[in-house]
Amino acid sequence: MMRPALALTTGEPAGIGPEIAAALAAGNHEARLVLLGDRDLLTQRAQAVGVTAAWPDFDPARDDDVAILHCPLAVPSQPGQLNPANAAYVLKLLDTAIDGCLDGTFGAIVTAPIHKGVINDAGVAEGFFFGHTEYLAVRTGTEQVVMMLTGGGMRVALATTHLPLAEVPDAITPETLSRTLHILHADLKTKFGLTAPRILVAGLNPHAGEGGHLGREEIDVIEPTLAALRAEGMTLIGPLPADTLFNRKQLEQGDAVLAMYHDQGLPVLKFASFGHGINVTLGLPLIRTSVDHGTALDLAGTGKADPGSLQAALALARELATAGADRQSR
Amino acid sequence: MMRPALALTTGEPAGIGPEIAAALAAGNHEARLVLLGDRDLLTQRAQAVGVTAAWPDFDPARDDDVAILHCPLAVPSQPGQLNPANAAYVLKLLDTAIDGCLDGTFGAIVTAPIHKGVINDAGVAEGFFFGHTEYLAVRTGTEQVVMMLTGGGMRVALATTHLPLAEVPDAITPETLSRTLHILHADLKTKFGLTAPRILVAGLNPHAGEGGHLGREEIDVIEPTLAALRAEGMTLIGPLPADTLFNRKQLEQGDAVLAMYHDQGLPVLKFASFGHGINVTLGLPLIRTSVDHGTALDLAGTGKADPGSLQAALALARELATAGADRQSR
Repeated sequence: MMRPALALTTGEPAGIGPEIAAALAAGNHEARLVLLGDRDLLTQRAQAVGVTAAWPDFDPARDDDVAILHCPLAVPSQPGQLNPANAAYVLKLLDTAIDGCLDGTFGAIVTAPIHKGVINDAGVAEGFFFGHTEYLAVRTGTEQVVMMLTGGGMRVALATTHLPLAEVPDAITPETLSRTLHILHADLKTKFGLTAPRILVAGLNPHAGEGGHLGREEIDVIEPTLAALRAEGMTLIGPLPADTLFNRKQLEQGDAVLAMYHDQGLPVLKFASFGHGINVTLGLPLIRTSVDHGTALDLAGTGKADPGSLQAALALARELATAGADRQSR
Repeated sequence: MMRPALALTTGEPAGIGPEIAAALAAGNHEARLVLLGDRDLLTQRAQAVGVTAAWPDFDPARDDDVAILHCPLAVPSQPGQLNPANAAYVLKLLDTAIDGCLDGTFGAIVTAPIHKGVINDAGVAEGFFFGHTEYLAVRTGTEQVVMMLTGGGMRVALATTHLPLAEVPDAITPETLSRTLHILHADLKTKFGLTAPRILVAGLNPHAGEGGHLGREEIDVIEPTLAALRAEGMTLIGPLPADTLFNRKQLEQGDAVLAMYHDQGLPVLKFASFGHGINVTLGLPLIRTSVDHGTALDLAGTGKADPGSLQAALALARELATAGADRQSR
């Protein structure tokens, strides 16, 4: 049986994506890796990391370690020089990967970084382009997704993601919180193979509201929601004060953390993972992992960017896709 | 010349404070440590950690390694059993330490944990008792203090502390932010001896607002405030996205971090310091350090509580008080 093919979208052509993808591909023998990008671009940027991009074109019938699925750039790309003319190319890589996952060609998507600004400047997305996660949700008709980062020995999912801080409290309602926990719980079971996931839930306010003295959202929203979900059989611990939740003993009590917002959960995960965090999108009808860093335009073309996060993202995608394929074949 | 006397308020009598203070005192030979608390209580709880509390009464004229400044409990205290009758005792320890700092008897205060709930239940404080930090501010007539935690190789100060999350955005104004940075900058110079402190400032919103797409507080409030303070000569880096600020390379660029709120800054510091974080109150006319944990009522009397954070707090208080005394004697 062939290994599941893993689509790596090499992302913004002016960023570090193409070269870290090439560096990763050069050392890859375990995954069946398909690089989505412009062949000439990949060939050039591979040189920056001392790699010869002599990989074959992707053939669904062959179990190559590395192959290229060529998608042409609109115009040649210079390292560090964003060009709106190539914004549609970036989306085309994503669309190709999504379609391939949905039709069974690919077992997972791994995404290298893209640049939201240039996609919005080009106006190629429908409406405002918020990022990979939101785009994947819209393109797969998924009403709600959950962003989870893993690394440094922890998994941290977010109840809200890219919102102004002032909008966070109102965005956490019994409905949204319940949906988020359902998605997290379901994906920890189906994608991560945990039979009875234990989730540590952070409070919204400092000290988880300290009995109402520092905010009432825990009492009015979070606790009743957790109680209702516990009655459905979920193991939910919290709401816990965020500053004590992330000690190692407490973390051992759970399989994942649900933080209420971006900067409550991600600083500690990124610190703990030494820049090798992995972003996993839950709730999609496909497996998607990603680096947790940006395009690093200033490093592009230098060959100095660290492929560690991309490597970790590929390893996790391979693990999840292989486990999923095993479960389907049973 | 005698060493500066360091007042250790042993805190809530039903908590772990008295026993971790005794454990710390037993191993102390460097600091001139004064335990503030009930002598019988300290004697009993010292037994839980295998220590004999044969320390002399505090005498300002003697340079003892350890001494006791006896303050009587109102009623005997049982481990783990909060009793409002002893709430006034807890405040008396603080008042004694504060007065001793202001009159030159003590060079610093180190505080063991107290329990806010029982102090509020007893109604012994004027108004609501928010905690040590706020109490010290009121008792010393200090208009604004800044809470800073140190540990794990970083210093993290907070622009807002114990506020409901929904109130954080409006609490950060040019005036409050400017005051906070003045206090932080001044104390890094005068108390920590840094001649030109560099401060890393976090944004309020995720990704520091991403150019206004995720909130405008960075553009409207934080950036103009930082610009004005830079014009006064401060070295301020930011506003930076909180989730990338806390990587080790970035942290090396600064002497301290200013986080905008509690759960943006403290989870990562507490994770990094393995529970040995130290809380330092800046802006006071005295030096105050503290443990970063609570009373741990469930551990009280067992002798199992870790004195590591208290030990770190004492070491820092000694360093700051000694440096301050040296500067005064020059």
